[in-house]
Amino acid sequence: MSKEYTVAILGATGAVGNCMIQQLEQSSIPVKELHLLASARSAGKTLTFRGQEVEVEETTPDSFEGVDLVLSSAGGSTSKKFLPEAVKRGAVCVDNTSAYRMDPDVPLVVPEVNPEALDNHHGIIANPNCSTIQMVVALEPIRQAFGLKQVIVSTYQAASGAGQSALNEFYQQAQDYLAGKKMTAEILPTKGDKRHYPLAFNLLPQIDVLEDSGYSHEEWKMIHETKKIMVGDMDAAEPKVTATCVRVPVGISHGESVYFEVEDQSATADQIKELLQNAPGVVLQDDLANQVYPQPLTAEGKRDVFVGRVRPDYENKGAFNMWIVADNLLKGAAWNAVQNAECLVERGLI
Amino acid sequence: MSKEYTVAILGATGAVGNCMIQQLEQSSIPVKELHLLASARSAGKTLTFRGQEVEVEETTPDSFEGVDLVLSSAGGSTSKKFLPEAVKRGAVCVDNTSAYRMDPDVPLVVPEVNPEALDNHHGIIANPNCSTIQMVVALEPIRQAFGLKQVIVSTYQAASGAGQSALNEFYQQAQDYLAGKKMTAEILPTKGDKRHYPLAFNLLPQIDVLEDSGYSHEEWKMIHETKKIMVGDMDAAEPKVTATCVRVPVGISHGESVYFEVEDQSATADQIKELLQNAPGVVLQDDLANQVYPQPLTAEGKRDVFVGRVRPDYENKGAFNMWIVADNLLKGAAWNAVQNAECLVERGLI
Repeated sequence: MSKEYTVAILGATGAVGNCMIQQLEQSSIPVKELHLLASARSAGKTLTFRGQEVEVEETTPDSFEGVDLVLSSAGGSTSKKFLPEAVKRGAVCVDNTSAYRMDPDVPLVVPEVNPEALDNHHGIIANPNCSTIQMVVALEPIRQAFGLKQVIVSTYQAASGAGQSALNEFYQQAQDYLAGKKMTAEILPTKGDKRHYPLAFNLLPQIDVLEDSGYSHEEWKMIHETKKIMVGDMDAAEPKVTATCVRVPVGISHGESVYFEVEDQSATADQIKELLQNAPGVVLQDDLANQVYPQPLTAEGKRDVFVGRVRPDYENKGAFNMWIVADNLLKGAAWNAVQNAECLVERGLI
Repeated sequence: MSKEYTVAILGATGAVGNCMIQQLEQSSIPVKELHLLASARSAGKTLTFRGQEVEVEETTPDSFEGVDLVLSSAGGSTSKKFLPEAVKRGAVCVDNTSAYRMDPDVPLVVPEVNPEALDNHHGIIANPNCSTIQMVVALEPIRQAFGLKQVIVSTYQAASGAGQSALNEFYQQAQDYLAGKKMTAEILPTKGDKRHYPLAFNLLPQIDVLEDSGYSHEEWKMIHETKKIMVGDMDAAEPKVTATCVRVPVGISHGESVYFEVEDQSATADQIKELLQNAPGVVLQDDLANQVYPQPLTAEGKRDVFVGRVRPDYENKGAFNMWIVADNLLKGAAWNAVQNAECLVERGLI
């Protein structure tokens, strides 16, 4: 009989935590027992897993006794506090926060791109940032075939990327605006920052905090995570990456406009489309005659990364533009985490 | 006594036409008489200009008898049909459609960038595309100071850019979505195209028709209009321009994420910000410590182009990113047209 696993979801009541429960339900991981962990405030609530009610428990170090696998999405400080306790008790943790992503001892993994990095884990595996994941899934087959010199990305990121409370705030703003009422903002653009602005019918060119470099932390993450995932070094000279991250009035699914330059200047848009058509985790939606291209409303609820509008920059050889959309809560977070866990099981690393 | 002008607004009942009436009210142009022209469907409606009711008339060639200045925004085919008639009758026309933009005999003018092009007009002056205008206003002072090699732009364009009916459709979709009803779409992404998609809570990477080149016509316009405005040649080798245009669920004001490379590699972000601070038509909103950056909701109703998030690409010398927002109905259309008319008056060209 194959091994069965005791799984804990840390941050089970959040937007991503909820999706983690669903994704785990649909996964190939044999779950013996599931613990749903959250803060004291959420303890006692019940959630459903495979038709059975599971009570949410307050997280303590002892919550991880006997746990084989932890899926964590309760914020960086919670991960820092509890994941070492989980590891100490023998669990392997897939962490969806930014707490450990840049730790050289922690693999940062997108299974379609660098599953072999899992082999060197020390108990914690980091799930990359949502906007990074969908971009590297689309770019990696191109990098493998033609080399990748430069990436210039502009993001169109959904409210749910800032959490369930931000999503609720956004929908309330939209209701208020349409009713002719004044919109209020207490969370977006970034929880805990000094000023807050409405997102509904607006654009906010700030995701996460703004740093002295002039970049937002989200932009910093896209630059350095892409390098770490693709070539194993967060400061690698190539591929060059620059990013502008913008929150847009969409509930779920991020869009990305990506300009990229490849080493092999003989590469064509048709070759790139063929690569994408056969790439794992990618669905090519690129049929201009029938106006087929990726959209958030059609990507929502799906695990795939949708790519379209692939075309050459006619003025720069080896340069192309494309448009990428994926569900930020699934491939950008919960599904990538569960997929990492499936890989750990398949590779006998747990 | 200074000259007074008889003005006609063609397409007076549309989203841009309405704004043209307001912008003309606030302009320095001495208006003797105003004719509001539209299709037969709108004839008989009344609109207000400087406190007086003006009846909308059906457009015929004779509508332009005695008219000195035409401001036109009724669609390309209407411009093609009527502007030659107006010119024949001695009027000078500022046309906000794409009908004449690429005609080598028609100046394509943004007054902050190339007002001298007005001097060679033959009766028709073209107003550029909304997304082009705000970009060239921000880029021109940088080009003048440091030279401009490359522009890579991703747009975040508001529903009103597709007209009043598209804007109404978008708000109805938002209402329906929030009420849990199915959204319907008959106009967006582009009136008259085969398929239509909801814009509310969604992103549509199609503005205007998609062409065989792989680019949308809006993207084509941004590329070639920028070259014509900046260097007088729609096919100029430099600056190189590539664009991805996306419709976003915002009512009014377009956003743009612009990556650009200058010739002078000693240029710094601080120098660029100083240039922008002193540039005509530009308001620099770039104070990261206080989370100050351009937003559609704060740009709406203003004539300026708002620029912020100016920062260097640390991996490419002479390369920068910035974020631009402007009211697409004002600087992107009605105000730029009226501003062109003011320049014609000032230069004695009318």
